[in-house]
Amino acid sequence: MVCLLGIDPGLRFTGWGLVEADGNRLRHLGDGVIPTDSDDPVPERLRRLHEGLTALIAEYHPQEAAVEETYVNRNGASTLKLGYARGVALLVPALAGISVAEYGAMAVKQSVVGTGAASKDQVQMMVRRLLPGALIRRADAADALAVAICHAHHRATARRWAGVR
Amino acid sequence: MVCLLGIDPGLRFTGWGLVEADGNRLRHLGDGVIPTDSDDPVPERLRRLHEGLTALIAEYHPQEAAVEETYVNRNGASTLKLGYARGVALLVPALAGISVAEYGAMAVKQSVVGTGAASKDQVQMMVRRLLPGALIRRADAADALAVAICHAHHRATARRWAGVR
Repeated sequence: MVCLLGIDPGLRFTGWGLVEADGNRLRHLGDGVIPTDSDDPVPERLRRLHEGLTALIAEYHPQEAAVEETYVNRNGASTLKLGYARGVALLVPALAGISVAEYGAMAVKQSVVGTGAASKDQVQMMVRRLLPGALIRRADAADALAVAICHAHHRATARRWAGVR
Repeated sequence: MVCLLGIDPGLRFTGWGLVEADGNRLRHLGDGVIPTDSDDPVPERLRRLHEGLTALIAEYHPQEAAVEETYVNRNGASTLKLGYARGVALLVPALAGISVAEYGAMAVKQSVVGTGAASKDQVQMMVRRLLPGALIRRADAADALAVAICHAHHRATARRWAGVR
């Protein structure tokens, strides 16, 4: 049994989702978003994001974290801003000694819905089905739970392969 | 008299430079780079960068920090990676309660050389002239000192405007 933290990073809203995995069985522990105020200077917004993720880790003690690899086709300035948030999302678990796995959007959809071509709505519907009790007040939280589910599946498979279970 | 930390962020090498400013008079306190191992996973590299910047702040107690705004015209993946390092460079001073100013490359060159069209070599030559004792073992350290100098000039001007000194 292991507690997994999924993160969908963004400077305005960072989604988070906590899932307990026992082999392939999953249980919802919590989900939400960490918002930052777009009127604040960027360093303050990153400090806020750091604080929010640090508090989650202190409360739930996840053993592993997973972050969705970002699809990059926007303009340079947005990509850079996304990079700031993603950098903090990768850093905070590392500071706590927690391993961080990364999964591409296709892998996450494949894992949750069964096809890499799934829509956002399909992902969200399947997340709600797989994790009764999920709040998902914003789409970012569903994406964070989805990457946690994806990590649960992959680590279960990796363990089976390794013969550990 | 104030101690200023300039940072030129990069995932492979982050340049840093510490300058003591007394009005327009400047003194070199230190410079160098924080390297990270490209064979390590990104979260570990960001943790290393966080550790390096945190140690500098603990040793020198700078009151203000300045980071060069990044010129973005590379491909999305490089921009994202630069964003990770830049996010950590903006975060760490904020965590220590230090204000972080950002300056565009043109403003830095204008401030150090007198023209926004200055070459890298001209910037480095002027940094060495303005800050005797600078080590500058890598160009990243010169860029970090340059942004610290730029911040020293701007804050001196801003204070004069405010009638403070």
